[in-house]
Amino acid sequence: MGQYRNGAGPMRVAQEAPFYRAAGDEAEVFRAAAGGGLPVLLKGPTGCGKTRFVQAMAHELGRELITIAGHEDMTSADLVGRFLLKGGETVWVDGPLTRAVRQGALCYLDEVVEARQDTIVVIHPLADHRRELALDRLGTTLPAADGFQLVISYNPGYQSVLKNIKESTRQRFVAIELGFPPAEIETEIVAREAGIDVRTAGDLVRLGNAIRNLDGAPLREVSSTRMLILAGALVAQGLGLRSAARSAIVQVLSDDPDVVHALGELADAVLPRP
Amino acid sequence: MGQYRNGAGPMRVAQEAPFYRAAGDEAEVFRAAAGGGLPVLLKGPTGCGKTRFVQAMAHELGRELITIAGHEDMTSADLVGRFLLKGGETVWVDGPLTRAVRQGALCYLDEVVEARQDTIVVIHPLADHRRELALDRLGTTLPAADGFQLVISYNPGYQSVLKNIKESTRQRFVAIELGFPPAEIETEIVAREAGIDVRTAGDLVRLGNAIRNLDGAPLREVSSTRMLILAGALVAQGLGLRSAARSAIVQVLSDDPDVVHALGELADAVLPRP
Amino acid sequence: MGQYRNGAGPMRVAQEAPFYRAAGDEAEVFRAAAGGGLPVLLKGPTGCGKTRFVQAMAHELGRELITIAGHEDMTSADLVGRFLLKGGETVWVDGPLTRAVRQGALCYLDEVVEARQDTIVVIHPLADHRRELALDRLGTTLPAADGFQLVISYNPGYQSVLKNIKESTRQRFVAIELGFPPAEIETEIVAREAGIDVRTAGDLVRLGNAIRNLDGAPLREVSSTRMLILAGALVAQGLGLRSAARSAIVQVLSDDPDVVHALGELADAVLPRP
Amino acid sequence: MGQYRNGAGPMRVAQEAPFYRAAGDEAEVFRAAAGGGLPVLLKGPTGCGKTRFVQAMAHELGRELITIAGHEDMTSADLVGRFLLKGGETVWVDGPLTRAVRQGALCYLDEVVEARQDTIVVIHPLADHRRELALDRLGTTLPAADGFQLVISYNPGYQSVLKNIKESTRQRFVAIELGFPPAEIETEIVAREAGIDVRTAGDLVRLGNAIRNLDGAPLREVSSTRMLILAGALVAQGLGLRSAARSAIVQVLSDDPDVVHALGELADAVLPRP
Amino acid sequence: MGQYRNGAGPMRVAQEAPFYRAAGDEAEVFRAAAGGGLPVLLKGPTGCGKTRFVQAMAHELGRELITIAGHEDMTSADLVGRFLLKGGETVWVDGPLTRAVRQGALCYLDEVVEARQDTIVVIHPLADHRRELALDRLGTTLPAADGFQLVISYNPGYQSVLKNIKESTRQRFVAIELGFPPAEIETEIVAREAGIDVRTAGDLVRLGNAIRNLDGAPLREVSSTRMLILAGALVAQGLGLRSAARSAIVQVLSDDPDVVHALGELADAVLPRP
Amino acid sequence: MGQYRNGAGPMRVAQEAPFYRAAGDEAEVFRAAAGGGLPVLLKGPTGCGKTRFVQAMAHELGRELITIAGHEDMTSADLVGRFLLKGGETVWVDGPLTRAVRQGALCYLDEVVEARQDTIVVIHPLADHRRELALDRLGTTLPAADGFQLVISYNPGYQSVLKNIKESTRQRFVAIELGFPPAEIETEIVAREAGIDVRTAGDLVRLGNAIRNLDGAPLREVSSTRMLILAGALVAQGLGLRSAARSAIVQVLSDDPDVVHALGELADAVLPRP
Repeated sequence: MGQYRNGAGPMRVAQEAPFYRAAGDEAEVFRAAAGGGLPVLLKGPTGCGKTRFVQAMAHELGRELITIAGHEDMTSADLVGRFLLKGGETVWVDGPLTRAVRQGALCYLDEVVEARQDTIVVIHPLADHRRELALDRLGTTLPAADGFQLVISYNPGYQSVLKNIKESTRQRFVAIELGFPPAEIETEIVAREAGIDVRTAGDLVRLGNAIRNLDGAPLREVSSTRMLILAGALVAQGLGLRSAARSAIVQVLSDDPDVVHALGELADAVLPRP
Repeated sequence: MGQYRNGAGPMRVAQEAPFYRAAGDEAEVFRAAAGGGLPVLLKGPTGCGKTRFVQAMAHELGRELITIAGHEDMTSADLVGRFLLKGGETVWVDGPLTRAVRQGALCYLDEVVEARQDTIVVIHPLADHRRELALDRLGTTLPAADGFQLVISYNPGYQSVLKNIKESTRQRFVAIELGFPPAEIETEIVAREAGIDVRTAGDLVRLGNAIRNLDGAPLREVSSTRMLILAGALVAQGLGLRSAARSAIVQVLSDDPDVVHALGELADAVLPRP
Repeated sequence: MGQYRNGAGPMRVAQEAPFYRAAGDEAEVFRAAAGGGLPVLLKGPTGCGKTRFVQAMAHELGRELITIAGHEDMTSADLVGRFLLKGGETVWVDGPLTRAVRQGALCYLDEVVEARQDTIVVIHPLADHRRELALDRLGTTLPAADGFQLVISYNPGYQSVLKNIKESTRQRFVAIELGFPPAEIETEIVAREAGIDVRTAGDLVRLGNAIRNLDGAPLREVSSTRMLILAGALVAQGLGLRSAARSAIVQVLSDDPDVVHALGELADAVLPRP
Repeated sequence: MGQYRNGAGPMRVAQEAPFYRAAGDEAEVFRAAAGGGLPVLLKGPTGCGKTRFVQAMAHELGRELITIAGHEDMTSADLVGRFLLKGGETVWVDGPLTRAVRQGALCYLDEVVEARQDTIVVIHPLADHRRELALDRLGTTLPAADGFQLVISYNPGYQSVLKNIKESTRQRFVAIELGFPPAEIETEIVAREAGIDVRTAGDLVRLGNAIRNLDGAPLREVSSTRMLILAGALVAQGLGLRSAARSAIVQVLSDDPDVVHALGELADAVLPRP
Repeated sequence: MGQYRNGAGPMRVAQEAPFYRAAGDEAEVFRAAAGGGLPVLLKGPTGCGKTRFVQAMAHELGRELITIAGHEDMTSADLVGRFLLKGGETVWVDGPLTRAVRQGALCYLDEVVEARQDTIVVIHPLADHRRELALDRLGTTLPAADGFQLVISYNPGYQSVLKNIKESTRQRFVAIELGFPPAEIETEIVAREAGIDVRTAGDLVRLGNAIRNLDGAPLREVSSTRMLILAGALVAQGLGLRSAARSAIVQVLSDDPDVVHALGELADAVLPRP
Repeated sequence: MGQYRNGAGPMRVAQEAPFYRAAGDEAEVFRAAAGGGLPVLLKGPTGCGKTRFVQAMAHELGRELITIAGHEDMTSADLVGRFLLKGGETVWVDGPLTRAVRQGALCYLDEVVEARQDTIVVIHPLADHRRELALDRLGTTLPAADGFQLVISYNPGYQSVLKNIKESTRQRFVAIELGFPPAEIETEIVAREAGIDVRTAGDLVRLGNAIRNLDGAPLREVSSTRMLILAGALVAQGLGLRSAARSAIVQVLSDDPDVVHALGELADAVLPRP
């Protein structure tokens, strides 16, 4: 097995032709939005495949994809660009959003709800009929090139009253909800992405669904597709299945000794003996 | 169908001759305020058409419109301008408000209640009989050119005790309240803006009003005209009406699975079968 | 009717010979303070005429008036001045307070209680027997020219425990309290400032006093003289009296539908039928 | 009567030979501290004469006095100095504390408890046996010249738990408590400083003490010597005694209409009829 | 005995061939993660040997180790790099994370949970299949060289609700939990690291475990392996064993006089008489 | 008597050969820590002699002593150094910690618990077996020269839950607790440091211990050795003993009139009549 990126492993394939299996009408809605140049809001839990879905749609539509990870300290300058000092002159350097607007790319703002309000407001004129980006520092406004489309994502489970998408932002978007895929599709994804056989992948998906179905479990998140792939990748490196599940799933889901113990027992019950 | 902005679709028309239908005496009051150079405060829910109303009035009055979106991190420099370093010298660059004051434009500050207090204070001398803008950093004061008019907007439903327009600011303005238009006018707007036939637009407006009339619904906002237009734009791209309503209205209004389910059933009941 | 500032309307007159009618001994106290070079603190509700009173006194005393609007983000540099980069050198640029100190002007700090503490401390040595301004960044102290006088204002109704004038600041000032003028004087002011006849002005003042006398009304502020003038200015532009009162008074005083309705009925009862 | 500073009035005299009357052993303690180079902490209410006491002692000891007003936003750079950009080079400019340390002056930090902690820590090595000032930015330490003495003041009534002098700072100082002077001395001070006759000054002192003796009065501060002098200065400009007391004392002490009314009646009862 | 670092003492040995004794399958899991280029999250109490484990694994894998200590004020620039001004030009200087990405080093982020959110987000694309570092300020993206691996650590006992690793971060990692080693292994470690005989080391480990087993002790942390080594190092310098335990363990664990007294008695009971 | 620093008084002696009397095994532990290059944490109340102890140990060990006072706004740059602009180039200037690391000095961080977390983290690699200082801005790591030793101090009585030394920092240090010295030693210290006879010094120490033994006294701190020396220094300047005790002890310990009165009576009872 090669390295996570550089080897011949399945991870690398995603760079070229992203593997995505639709579970509902999400692709259909995305295509209609793309056709009308309408912005899209993706809702769903962490690790359910939002990023991969966007990659697949960009690939199908033949558009460049520019991804920006939102965070608490992100400012509008991080999106739009800033002046840098070069040779005693201030020189403007485009931010990733500005590059997407100029090139007509698909711009994916991941977890944008984390960003400060000024970054949110920057995208308003791009998200309605104006389709333009105000470059206040340059004193100009940039019309979006054909093909530009805005996609933002967030995880409804995380949002608090204080940290939410403003209604005035939300209602500029077409909303698509994503969840964890059905067992059959998820097994296919885990097998492909981790580079393991379908039976082992099926074991991991069974464990994932067993954890997702726990009643009243004190877990902030359930086992995501991403965790199952990581566990599979450890197996692909020769680690035992139970050891892999313990490291990539159980120990990741909780720090509480009792919860870790209970999840460990569940894993041993679901997974085959070595 | 063309793209949201660049195609031949209805969105583009708004750039040239904004479509607005008055539902009360709002245009009459605006004209009187404009005649006397008095500043205007627009009150109303998100997506009810405040921006479009200002565009229509600017068009009727033959004045340039400069729009500025307020946000939490907006400073007075964002409005007034700042010094930039060029060739070892600091050069002053006008902000959008200063440009409007010099050119006698109509200046629309959207959601200005979000901005920091210093931005608010900057507009005080522009909003009373002084009609001047203090450029503190330049050490001068700029008289407003003929035709300059200040318009600010806010959504009363959002305001908390902490985040409100100061009384000393409010009472410098003539206040105009806007709401969602009557069904007939809203249907005409949705049909025109989304590029769909009047019957489909009427279906969407009926759904919008059904949601607006829900008693005790746990929704922070109701379905706005903007949402109905977005749903219509998805239909114009070939998506089914119910799918469009689910993506542009139901999923946008809530993240709560129960609420989403109930609104979905309401949509299915109101909208015709495919 | 001309524009708010540039036309031949009444607003313009204020620039030359401010119209002020004393209702108590406020002018007498101000003159004594000016004679002794003592600083003045003006107390009173928003829109009662504090600014106009200072303009009238500056005119009578033949002194230049420099007005500075206080706000939360105002720093001492905004008052005193700062270094700017010009041609690779830092060049000092006086702030408005420093200009007033050099020229012996009357310096009016409006709503100074909003400013940060360091701005307040800057004015201490100007407000006591020292009459000097420390220019810390220049390493010098500037004695106030003859004629310099400091006037600050604030609205007692707004002050909270956290945001108040420090006692050590307050007691450096001679305090003058202003309120809304008696009906006869207020009618004269409204008629002059708005450019309307005395009967219409009287109607508006009657409405203003009716609102001021409401018991237990959930209003943060009552109808100010400034609001009455704005309503009059709309009438001067041809708008009906009731429409003008609704836009410039009722809708400004509250966002609560019930309160707006009740105030609207009160306005209809007080104002003559069209 | 001349102006507060530039005329022939009594205020000016203070610039040359400050008028101070000791009411206890404060001068004796100050002299011993000065003899040993020990730092002094002055405690006492606002306007009781702390500044004037320091001026008198500096005059008696023949030392230059450098006064610095503390405030919330004061940083150590405001005390110690900073680099400024001149001709493309950064040039160091001494702050007022550094100047005092070099010249062996008496350095008076007024209301230093307001300053940020780093300013406080800067004075520690100056306040103990080290008698030196660390100039971190220059990478050197400056020994205090002979004659340098540190005096800080604060008002115990203002201090909260959060905003207090740290014990580790306090115990480096010799503490002297000052209060309002006895009636006879205060009358002499008010007459001299305001330029009025002793009888009128006596009337004002009587009013001052009547207010200070009020039981359970909802006043944050009582009438200070400074207020009495201000009232006297208004009288010296020709204003009636009761009008002067109302503006310089009553309206300054409270914004509450009931308290203002009660204090006004007390003033009318204590002061002679015009 | 030499100095902590430069002498011939045991501390120095760690620089060359880190001494580590595995107590579970932690090394096995780490090797599988390293083989697949998967990022690792180390969980465990302070001083249990997390850093030493990473050093041992880096040594075994033959990779350079770059360690970065996380803290509250760490920004993404501290990790990624920044522009510095040199000769009038801004020059980019790589941060430690960027150096690790370029060189294919093992990058260990210690206590990264302390850092601000923007630093966390920076590592996301490095921690999933993308294996790339966005250099936003340079407008480029850097692919990780072969051999690059990310390891982060945190102490679950410290985490509060506010200060935790986001789920979306956690689930990108393979998690390994570490605890204090069994007595035999810990004795060997203490003897080697402190340069003392095995019997004395055994005495210290016995004291350490006695403290760890105290019921309901008001200690925020228990005696760590690191503390035992420090106590041993004092003994190696000639200090008595009880004095060493008091200084390196008892006085470090608490400031409460009663707790200090009780722990002192426990130490005297466990440790042999001098 | 000379000045606090420059005269022939006792304060000056401390500059050359610090006077310290050990009351326990603190010097022995310090020597062992110094021998092993282990960092030391000094715990004890304000003014008990922590600084003097470090000065004495540095003198005995023949090492240079570099003292840094911690405070809330201290940043890592204050310790490590920063770039300054000189002649258009940025030039690196070492901070005091970096100088100590290069020169192998004893570096004493006083009240370091006040500093921000990033300053604390900077000292971690200096405090464990690595003995190195990361100069992130220079992109290098500086090994500590032979003889470098880190000593930090704090006052356990001040620490709150929010403002404490992190456990991960604490357990890198050997902890030594200091208290006020026994009466005989304290009398010798006060006599020497203040330059007064032993009988007067004994009177002051008796007062100090009387205050320390007060039950339930509402004092945040008790009378420290430093206060007793200050009182003695006033006596050495000719002030009466009771006056000196009132100014340097009683008025320093409290602002509460009742407490000041009670402490004054206690002082009069303990101290001999003049």
